[in-house]
Order: sequence, then C-alpha cells, then structure tokens
Amino acid sequence: MNAADLIACARGEKPADLLLANARIVNVFSGEILSGNVGVKEGVILGTGDYRAQETVDLGGRFLAPGFIDAHVHIESSMASVPEFVRAVVPHGTTTVVTDPHEIANVMGMAGIRCLIDQAADVSANVYFSLPSCVPATHLETAGARLSAQDLSALAAHPRVVALGEMMNVPGVLSGDPDVLEKLDMMRRRRKVRDGHAPRLSGKALNAYLAAGITSDHECADFQEAREKLRSGMHIMIREATGAKNLAALLPLVTHDTARRLMWCTDDRHPHDLLDRGSVDDLVRKAVRAGLDPVIAIRMATLHAAEYFGLGHLGGIAPGRQADIVVFSDLADPVIEVVYHRGIKVAEGGRMVAEEKPLADQAPVNTVNLASACLDFTVPAAGDMLRVMEIVPDQLFTKQRRMRATVRGGAVVSVPEQDLLKIVVVERHRGTGNVGKGFVTGLGLRRGAVATSVAHDAHNIVAVGVNDDDMRVAVEKLAAMGGGLAVACDGAVTASLALPTAGLMSSQPVRRLRERLDRLTAAARALGAAAGDPFMVLSFLALPVIPELKITDRGLVDVAAFRLVPLFD
Amino acid sequence: MNAADLIACARGEKPADLLLANARIVNVFSGEILSGNVGVKEGVILGTGDYRAQETVDLGGRFLAPGFIDAHVHIESSMASVPEFVRAVVPHGTTTVVTDPHEIANVMGMAGIRCLIDQAADVSANVYFSLPSCVPATHLETAGARLSAQDLSALAAHPRVVALGEMMNVPGVLSGDPDVLEKLDMMRRRRKVRDGHAPRLSGKALNAYLAAGITSDHECADFQEAREKLRSGMHIMIREATGAKNLAALLPLVTHDTARRLMWCTDDRHPHDLLDRGSVDDLVRKAVRAGLDPVIAIRMATLHAAEYFGLGHLGGIAPGRQADIVVFSDLADPVIEVVYHRGIKVAEGGRMVAEEKPLADQAPVNTVNLASACLDFTVPAAGDMLRVMEIVPDQLFTKQRRMRATVRGGAVVSVPEQDLLKIVVVERHRGTGNVGKGFVTGLGLRRGAVATSVAHDAHNIVAVGVNDDDMRVAVEKLAAMGGGLAVACDGAVTASLALPTAGLMSSQPVRRLRERLDRLTAAARALGAAAGDPFMVLSFLALPVIPELKITDRGLVDVAAFRLVPLFD
Repeated sequence: MNAADLIACARGEKPADLLLANARIVNVFSGEILSGNVGVKEGVILGTGDYRAQETVDLGGRFLAPGFIDAHVHIESSMASVPEFVRAVVPHGTTTVVTDPHEIANVMGMAGIRCLIDQAADVSANVYFSLPSCVPATHLETAGARLSAQDLSALAAHPRVVALGEMMNVPGVLSGDPDVLEKLDMMRRRRKVRDGHAPRLSGKALNAYLAAGITSDHECADFQEAREKLRSGMHIMIREATGAKNLAALLPLVTHDTARRLMWCTDDRHPHDLLDRGSVDDLVRKAVRAGLDPVIAIRMATLHAAEYFGLGHLGGIAPGRQADIVVFSDLADPVIEVVYHRGIKVAEGGRMVAEEKPLADQAPVNTVNLASACLDFTVPAAGDMLRVMEIVPDQLFTKQRRMRATVRGGAVVSVPEQDLLKIVVVERHRGTGNVGKGFVTGLGLRRGAVATSVAHDAHNIVAVGVNDDDMRVAVEKLAAMGGGLAVACDGAVTASLALPTAGLMSSQPVRRLRERLDRLTAAARALGAAAGDPFMVLSFLALPVIPELKITDRGLVDVAAFRLVPLFD
Repeated sequence: MNAADLIACARGEKPADLLLANARIVNVFSGEILSGNVGVKEGVILGTGDYRAQETVDLGGRFLAPGFIDAHVHIESSMASVPEFVRAVVPHGTTTVVTDPHEIANVMGMAGIRCLIDQAADVSANVYFSLPSCVPATHLETAGARLSAQDLSALAAHPRVVALGEMMNVPGVLSGDPDVLEKLDMMRRRRKVRDGHAPRLSGKALNAYLAAGITSDHECADFQEAREKLRSGMHIMIREATGAKNLAALLPLVTHDTARRLMWCTDDRHPHDLLDRGSVDDLVRKAVRAGLDPVIAIRMATLHAAEYFGLGHLGGIAPGRQADIVVFSDLADPVIEVVYHRGIKVAEGGRMVAEEKPLADQAPVNTVNLASACLDFTVPAAGDMLRVMEIVPDQLFTKQRRMRATVRGGAVVSVPEQDLLKIVVVERHRGTGNVGKGFVTGLGLRRGAVATSVAHDAHNIVAVGVNDDDMRVAVEKLAAMGGGLAVACDGAVTASLALPTAGLMSSQPVRRLRERLDRLTAAARALGAAAGDPFMVLSFLALPVIPELKITDRGLVDVAAFRLVPLFD
C-alpha cells in the first residue's frame, strides 16, 4: 500500500479500514496485557488508539495476540498442497510458517522447491522457506536430486527464503566438507539464519558444529541437551510433531530469562494431528496447561520467531506491522476463535471464512519413473539366516534380528505365520532398476500387500507383502497414480490415495486426506496389519540415519556402521 | 580464517591459540554466570571446554563478558579520528560501536561518510555505521551537503552499514515526504534497521512515525515516554551522553521482560567524559549501582544490541562468535581490566596494549570556504529593541529575551557590562558570504572573542565577542586551520585547536585533545567566560531545532514557529 496513506491513517486524518475495539491486547514487546482498540488499514496495523474506521468490531474484552509462527515445518508431512495446508493451520491461529521443502526437494530438486514457492504465492498466510541443506540425506540411497551450494544459490536471495534448512549432515559439518561449509557461508553472507539438526550433539562436537555457523536446533529431546545448546548460543525450537514430542521434557528450560531464545515448531504433523490437535496453538495450550506464563508462551509463538528469522513486519501488534491477529477468550486455554490475516478475517470458529478455492491446476509432473524390468521381487536363496528388521511399536528405530529363511522353488518367501514379510524399496526417480530387498517382522500382514511412495528421505517406493503378486499390484498402482499409498489383495487394489505432486502431496483438502488415510488403514487392518499406522511405519523403514537396520533401494543398511550389509547373515 | 581449521580446533583436534581458563563467564543467552574455560582460535571463540592452547591465561575466577556495544554514537563529538576514538573507548570494554556520521556528513556529504568508513578499516574495534538520514537537518541554514535517498543508496549495501541513522525529520515522516520514505524503505528492503529520533512523540503521531518503519529511539527522557515507545514495538536505546543523561529516569523500565528490547548508547561524549567516565561501561556501572541485575545490564550492553543490528557474530561468548571479550573482577562494579578484540589482548588497566600508531596521513580536505567579503560583522542599527538569545546554564535550549540596543556610529555593539554580546554565524561551506548576526546574553565574556566550527548540525562558524576585530581574528584563525576552536583578544589568538577533518575532528589522541580543550576553556575564562564549557554552549546556539531562539547563517530562528525572524523587535 501507499506509505503516505498509511501514515495519514495512523495520524487519524483518514479513516481506518477496521477497528478491533474493546480488546485485551497481548503486548509481546513489554510482556503486558493492555486494554485498547487496534486500528488496521490495508492489512497493516496503525497502532492502538480511538481510530475512526469503516468497520468496528467490538471484542467485548476478548484477547488479541499476534498471529502464531511455526518456526519449522515440513508441509509435505500433511500430504496436502501449500494452500490446503494453510487452510488447515490458519483456523488454529498459525498465520506464518517457515517451511523446509526437504521432502519434495529429495524427489524433484530445485523444481520441487520452486513448486512449493509457487503454491505459496496466493494463500492466506505468510509462507517462508528454508533451503534444504541435505539433498540427498545420505550416500546409501538413490534420491531424485542432489543439491549443491551452487544449486541452492539460485534461491538464496529469494524474498521468501529466510534460512538454510536443518543441517542434518553433522559428519559433513564436523569434517569441514567444503560444499556443506559453502551452503552455510552463502546464507550467512546474505544475513539469513542457518537452522540446525543435531540430536544429542554435545561438548566439543557441538562447539565445532556451531563454529561452522549453525544458529538453531529443533531436535533437543531432554532438558540438559537443550540447556547446553541454549548456553552455546543456539536458538531452540521446541518441537511437538506427530512422531516426536519434546514439549514436556523441555518446558523446564523456559524462564523469563531464556524464553527470548526459544520458539515453537511442529516439524511434521500428519492430517489427523493437524485436524484434531492443531498447529502452534496446540503447543501454546499444552505449555500453558503445564504452568507456563501464557504471555511467555505467546511471545515464543510470535515475536521470538519473527526476530530470529528477521521478519520485522511480523510477530507483534504494533504500528506498521502486518495485521495478522488472533482472537481468543481464555488466557488459560487459548482456543483461537477468529483469525485476521493482513487485516482480513480469514477464519472463525475453527474454519476458514472464504469458500474453498481449489489449487489452480498445475499439470502434475509425474515423478514415478520405474525401470521396466524392476518389478521382479524374487529373492534367490543364498543362505539360511536372514538379517530382519524388527519394528518396535511407536518408534522410528528398528532392531536387527536373525531369522531362518523359508525357501520355495529356490527363492526366499514371506511367512505370514511367523510375521516374516518381504519388503522391497524400488528406486523410482531415475529408472535405475534398483530394488533393495529384505524382510521385516512386526507389521502383522496375513494377506496382500501395502506400498507407499512417501518414504523418508529419498522417497523411493516401499512395499511390504505376503506375496510378490500383490506387492507388484500395489507398486503398479502407485506408478499409475504418480505416487501415493495403496493396499492390494488377491491381485486387486482395495484402497489407494494418489499423491501426484512428487509422490508426496495431493491437492485434496486435509479433511479429505484424513478420510482416505482412515480407509487405507482400515484396508490394511483387514489384511491383518498391526495397530498403529502401517504407512507411517513403512515411511521410516527406508531412512538409513535412524538405527539399527534399515533398507534403501541399494539394499540393507547397518545404521551404526553406516554401510550396506548383505541380506544373508 | 579457514572454516575447516576452526572446526578442527573446536573439536579439539588442533590446538587453540588462547585459553582463557578458570573464568566466571557471563552467559548472555541463558542469563547465568557459569564457571569454565574459553578457547579461542584466530580471533574466533571455539566454545567452553578444556582446550589445549598455545597460550593459557589463568583468570583466577575473574569474570568474562562479551565486548560491549555502543548502539548509537557520533564519533565526531569526541573531536578525534576514528582510530583515536577507538583507542579511547576500547580500554573501557567497548569493542563495537554503531556510529552515525551525521556531523561530518553535514559538512562533507558522502565523502565525509566514506572518510570515516576508511578510517575504520584497521582499528581494534568493530566500527559499524548508520547512514545519516537528515542532511541538512533543516531548511533554515546552509549546510555543506544535501543527501537524498539516491545519494545514500550508494552505501546502503556496504557491509559496515547496518542501519539508517536517527530519523529526526519527524515532520517529514508525518507528512509522508517521498524522499524520507524512500530512505526508510531502501534500508527495510536490505533488511537493515531504521533508527529513530523522536523526543516526546506520543499517541497517533508516534503511531504514524512507526508506521513508516522506524525501529528504535534513543531520545526518551522519561519513563512514560519510553514505556509507550517500547509497547509500540520500538527498541529503546538508553542514553547517557555528555549533554543528555536519561539512565536514571529510564531505569524503572528495565525488567526481565522488557530488557530484551533495550540497549545502551552514549550518543555524544566529549573528550573529558570519555576519559573520566568511560563509554558503555559507565552506563553498566551506573545501572548496577542503581540496583539493576548486572547480568541484565551486560545483556543490554552486548547481545541485545547485536541482535537488533543483525550482528550475529557479536554479542556473546559462544562457538563461532568473534572473540571480543572483557575481563573484570567485581560484578557489582564492573571496571574493565582487560579487553580482547578478535582474540588479541588490546587493552589492559585502562590503556591500549599496542603502541600508538598515528593515523595514516590523509591529505586533509579543507572544508572552510569563506567568501572573501564575509568578515564584516557590522550590525547597522535598524531599531531600538533586540531579540536576544539568553543562555540557560546546563541546557541546550535558550530563552528569547528583549534587550535595548546600544548604538555606536550607527551600528549596534556588544555591551559587556550588560553581558550582551554579538554573535555571528558565518557560512563556511560554499562561500555564499552568508553571515547571520545576533546578540546573546549569559556567556559572560568581558574582552576578546571565541569561535568554533563545531556548531550542530550545519557546522558553520559561530563566533561571539566583545568587538568585531577580535571576532574576525578568531574566525580567520579557524579559516587558516581548516576549522577548529579559537580564542582571541586584543587582536591576537590566545588559544586554539585545529580540527582539520571537516572542521570537526583532529588526528590527535583524545588525551591531547582534552588538554587543548582545557587550555581553550582557561583562555576563555580569562576573558570572563561564565562557568561551563563556552565552546559547547556555542556549538548548540546554531541548532535551530531546540527552542526558543537560535541563529543560523541565514539569521535568527524562532524555533517554535520554525522560521526566520528579524533581529530588531
């Protein structure tokens, strides 16, 4: 808008668009709650005062706070497009996210990052990006892309890019890998922060990691770890994801003295979680219920993240800042009732105000590229004993177990009676024909097969089944859909969900995705799948950075040794 | 330095340069004081830990804190060059300053700013700059330059430039002056802060000023004013200058909740003050003595300013940050004993460690450019009653008084018996020949004349005297020296100080400048000058933004009306 007009309105010489009257305002700068009226003009806050306005909303003493900021989130984990993700989180009061398109970048490279940036162009929230620092995540798998510092530099100055994304290549940092250091330095030179990812790092190794210029961490799991990192100058994002919940453990760290270095993030939230629990508001409520001063919880959800990322126009209710404002009634249990974005009421009562606008159709790029000959999942018998991945309920790590191979016609087969099932990872980016083959126990399937193209971090296709035919049917369904999730039995698909964007995301609303996921889980359960979400289990079996035994398109990985190992032991 | 080497040292694989052992470390991130050892390599902090080092210094439990940051200072007020100013403040623990070259810019324009940036290239402190936003300060005087947004843009991206300097053109902001708004927006686009200067601004006018994008203020004189500005989103710099002291009034604002938005600045400190009281350390000590938690006082002197200006490599003792560290023994009265800059001990016991290196001779540009015919100070009698500036002891404002003119030979003359003295402001930048003429009371001279080329903000030559001849002698001396200060009596110069850089600064050490200023004051006192510093009084008589009556090269200014007024009333 015209700055001179804004100034004239702030002086009271021209009427405001909107006056939020009779409010109790959470002042994140002073840490107070102050009664007042807030004027808004063309999406910008004029300040508190008795402004004449086109529209006055009497809040009857309800609370106003700045819109919440999610400091680190992978939108891909919602399986939704950026617009549909936004429609899921904005009613919860999250008006700003810093998203790391790490997953789509592993599939589509820079084109994937640009795809999400394009999707963020016209949504009712501020969507900022960090540049994925670790594509591919490891050298033990085939990802869809490899992003060097040189590649990333094309987007380093982009106004939506505010950070380098979580630097999980800790060995690369500690060994002084030149490309890793250049990624960090490139963002430092542009005065942009460098997010870290360093679970359990401590002492001199932590010092070395920080000396490289890392500025934050969101992987702290306990108080001592977080305290050491805070003392060492890191900003700490306290995370409450679907799969990793750290709030209870880290809350003792939060005091009036430390809070300024702390903020909230959701990291990965699946559709169920987003709809049932919410976004950053869920963390604020949990923290307040656990006894944290609500003003501190709200400061962490707003100003602290805005300052960390250098987003000076966000994070506070003050003159000249963007009018992203949430309304709630109970400071002890802040359930967001109304959300303003750029001065427009965009959500009320947990729903978006505006009617659904479907995502403008981008002709989806098919990212599933299978070699024609790769669907032979036969495992020729070459020994008696198998290395088997044992699933541990509710954990991302597996145990390594030895089990006896059952051989039919010269090939090792699944034995559902022993809960010993074949697993394959089919390379799906480059048509290499790579198929990693192994066995897993703990999934519980008695019939049929399940498959997914959401498989961190390389997102190849992972399939588990009782027989090769059903596995092939499920994988072929994924190929036909351009990626997604499928259940097959007796040669037919019994449930599926297409994720045509990179094999990771759909343009469906989060609510619809949740229904489809429920159907998929029910279909898998009907085949005997154990409790929990079998697709979520699958999606982490191919992540070779979490112990003990994992599988990629190149074969089994002993994570502790960080190398490929043979199936037969 | 080589980042990979730094990382290897932080891991402990290679020895550090320096270990500061057995210290109590002020941790500005957590707000704690922690015992430990700090490793340093090539000027960068490795972190705390038991590092092998080339040199180990046992601190015997003394305190370590990050080097102090002066958030807003005009180096010109010290009359010293940047290197000599640095040599004066570093022993006090100030290792970083953000300086606003407003004074030299009013004389020399962009060349003046570049001159100070060049001087800052090789000094034992971090000298950052804000770009002077208001050159000239008003339209009622003739300055040496006029800097538009277009002019400033040449330095906006300079790595030493971290802010737009104090925006004192409040009317320009409030009226939406396009060039003023462009200056603000230009720095916002570069993610650099915009310092304000808005004494007593409040309510909707303050809202409007902030809506334009101003981010800080250092002109708060009382608690209510500072609280309103803090609540409105401004960062507040608490100032303790030679001429304006706000610490005592603002200290009640400082709490664990608000301190993060607060920092310290000295603004203008004259040689006496720098040497006798110090720099930011003086504010820290005063605050602590007044009861402020020392850790908060030190956070305000370090991390808070570093964060505000986006100087992520400064402000804390943590891995990867620059090794600017101060040592002191008494937390209740922190007198700085040792100062490290980039890991090198640069000061100890109040003195620089290294021997004096004179400033590399820059051929000084003579900025005193008088029209040949301008030294006729005659005031033809054109009425009976004069508008007279009355000096109020220890204040920058004057009172307007009516006094009867004494006429000799058709001209109004000084009457020392009535303490009614002639004052002239001689335009000295462009040779216009402008001479503003008036009368002043309260200075006390009984004989001779005094003159200075330090005269805020246009820095024309101001002279006051009992007779025109001595005034002319003093002004001619200034012209011969390329600017400075002079006392004349009976046709001869009795004391002088050359300030050949822009007529504002010398290359002498601050200690020498102080001696010369003492001699000048004594010489003025010998002529009858009243208590206080007559040159400081003179230097504000030409500043037409402080009430009531002031004088510029264009004549008398009624400040309330903000217009020129005739001498005869």
